[in-house]
Amino acid sequence: MSQQLIFTNDVASAIDSIHSAVNPASTFVLVDSNTISFVLPRLKSQSAAVASASIIEVQAGDVHKSLDSLASIWKRLGDMGATRRSMLINLGGGMVTDMGAFAASTFKRGITFVNVPTTLLGAVDASVGGKTGINFNGLKNEVGVFREAEAVIISTTFFGTLSHTELLSGYAEMLKHGLISSPAVFNSLLATDVADIDPDHMLSLLRESVQVKRDVVDSDPTEQGPRKALNLGHTAGHAFESLAMKRNSPVPHGYAVAWGLVVELILSGMILKFPSSLISQFAAYVYANYRAMPITCDDYPALLDLMRHDKKNATAASINFTLLRAIGDVCIDSTASDEQISQALDIYRDLMHL
Amino acid sequence: MSQQLIFTNDVASAIDSIHSAVNPASTFVLVDSNTISFVLPRLKSQSAAVASASIIEVQAGDVHKSLDSLASIWKRLGDMGATRRSMLINLGGGMVTDMGAFAASTFKRGITFVNVPTTLLGAVDASVGGKTGINFNGLKNEVGVFREAEAVIISTTFFGTLSHTELLSGYAEMLKHGLISSPAVFNSLLATDVADIDPDHMLSLLRESVQVKRDVVDSDPTEQGPRKALNLGHTAGHAFESLAMKRNSPVPHGYAVAWGLVVELILSGMILKFPSSLISQFAAYVYANYRAMPITCDDYPALLDLMRHDKKNATAASINFTLLRAIGDVCIDSTASDEQISQALDIYRDLMHL
Repeated sequence: MSQQLIFTNDVASAIDSIHSAVNPASTFVLVDSNTISFVLPRLKSQSAAVASASIIEVQAGDVHKSLDSLASIWKRLGDMGATRRSMLINLGGGMVTDMGAFAASTFKRGITFVNVPTTLLGAVDASVGGKTGINFNGLKNEVGVFREAEAVIISTTFFGTLSHTELLSGYAEMLKHGLISSPAVFNSLLATDVADIDPDHMLSLLRESVQVKRDVVDSDPTEQGPRKALNLGHTAGHAFESLAMKRNSPVPHGYAVAWGLVVELILSGMILKFPSSLISQFAAYVYANYRAMPITCDDYPALLDLMRHDKKNATAASINFTLLRAIGDVCIDSTASDEQISQALDIYRDLMHL
Repeated sequence: MSQQLIFTNDVASAIDSIHSAVNPASTFVLVDSNTISFVLPRLKSQSAAVASASIIEVQAGDVHKSLDSLASIWKRLGDMGATRRSMLINLGGGMVTDMGAFAASTFKRGITFVNVPTTLLGAVDASVGGKTGINFNGLKNEVGVFREAEAVIISTTFFGTLSHTELLSGYAEMLKHGLISSPAVFNSLLATDVADIDPDHMLSLLRESVQVKRDVVDSDPTEQGPRKALNLGHTAGHAFESLAMKRNSPVPHGYAVAWGLVVELILSGMILKFPSSLISQFAAYVYANYRAMPITCDDYPALLDLMRHDKKNATAASINFTLLRAIGDVCIDSTASDEQISQALDIYRDLMHL
């Protein structure tokens, strides 16, 4: 685990410098149907490594994070003469970096790869931790490996092409990092207006946020225990996400996480005395930016059922959460009863004006 | 890399003991259409872990070491409720252990697996080194990862079902291990009659042979350099194997390796002064047991071409070999010219009575 994390808004120079240091036998760039139009042309004109690379394109969208796409990447690499000393540069959101990293980790039993996340969610969530993979058999990230990139180049220069929704979606993971790290990080995030953010300020927030994840992952690279801190907000969040899917009105992952964080802070208050003033402050921030997932008490049985079947809870009879005693004071493997969760959802509806 | 290597002819007890120590949430056994008939029933009656496991079957044969088979293993694991805390026991030859290990290394980003090789080749060649994978896009082991098993249980009890050809095929890799290790190991191998070997004596030879590979692999787990010692015999061997394939009369891998070892010892004599008396002794042993790959000088251009395109030589203009100065004195990244190789093939034909 010796992945370089490079924070810069001069991405082309960073790519060329890593490329020179590694000196691969040949170079490939993986893009999707978005980044091939919006990001690749700019980088090609600025980076000698990208300009000389062979391009592999996959279709954009999580539905294409599939075995078929993976096989097409392996095939293209092979057909274009990639060897064990080749390099793959993954240029895109989390879907491209997750799948490209898996392809590179397995092609000829592993070639060097560099991730260049082009979305905020990709930068903050997918850039550290070495989680690679594809969806399979109807399940997200069902197959993959843990393997970190040679380098991850994190910049905010591509975020100009992102919608406000996409920015907010990534920002929710940063809020989570703030909650599990320290009041200082948390407060600087809550003091920032995502709608009107300067790229350099965003880069400094990102650096802080990614470092939080880096520290957690380093303490537990293969997710045996402490890394569960990063699950904060995600048990309830995944349930919201799945419920929205069932209703045929999907919500962005980050929005579901933001709402899930509200629910799990409420549970933290009930079970671990997390301060109620912070719960109210956080809920107000989430409501102002993300509004609320609309639920009624008729949805509780479905939500409880989804939480129970979350893969993080594979063996638990009761439902497993990562909760907080205070900001930065994480309690993994907390459990809550159905009654406690229902009560937390009542309070969520109240705080979110439902 | 903390793989346990267990040498025993009480396989059932070894499986049950590892199974108890790991205490997986659920257990799966991967078999092929051979081992499901010839090995599984016996183990089921002796091992509680195997008796209670769910069985996953793939078709036997290298042609089924494919993406389709891999996907079917992933799907069966998922459909039968495997979790990150499940265990997969791979029961078969190198095809089953390579593919099963790859499936386990990638299912939910990695579950515990145990390899139980049932062939001599699998025991000596596939049990150590963490090479997992499948064939893809017409190439052997084109995708895979390096990952070692929780444990490998090496026994000779299943070899009773192997043909003499299969035994000899595995024995060729042991001969290679003898050549790269020491005169003592080498001489004990040459003094043994493979046709008439006692299971306990074979187990002790295997233990010695696997330890040679273990030492080499530990010094270089991801094949950056020293591990190339294990390529001895394989540049010429793969060329023989591919030529036989082209002629539509395939030869067992180990036979091709045995003949390849003869050629590469001859080259070692020409280039590094490897003793000619040992070359003659070894060639006679190989001829007595494996006979010879029939070649004429008309085959030289095809053989040279195949050697040049071996994946070990991806960037070399001249052809790359692992050669020996003496038994146990390995010289990786040796090169030989087309003329030297042609001359070596002349001598091979002479020594092999062609």
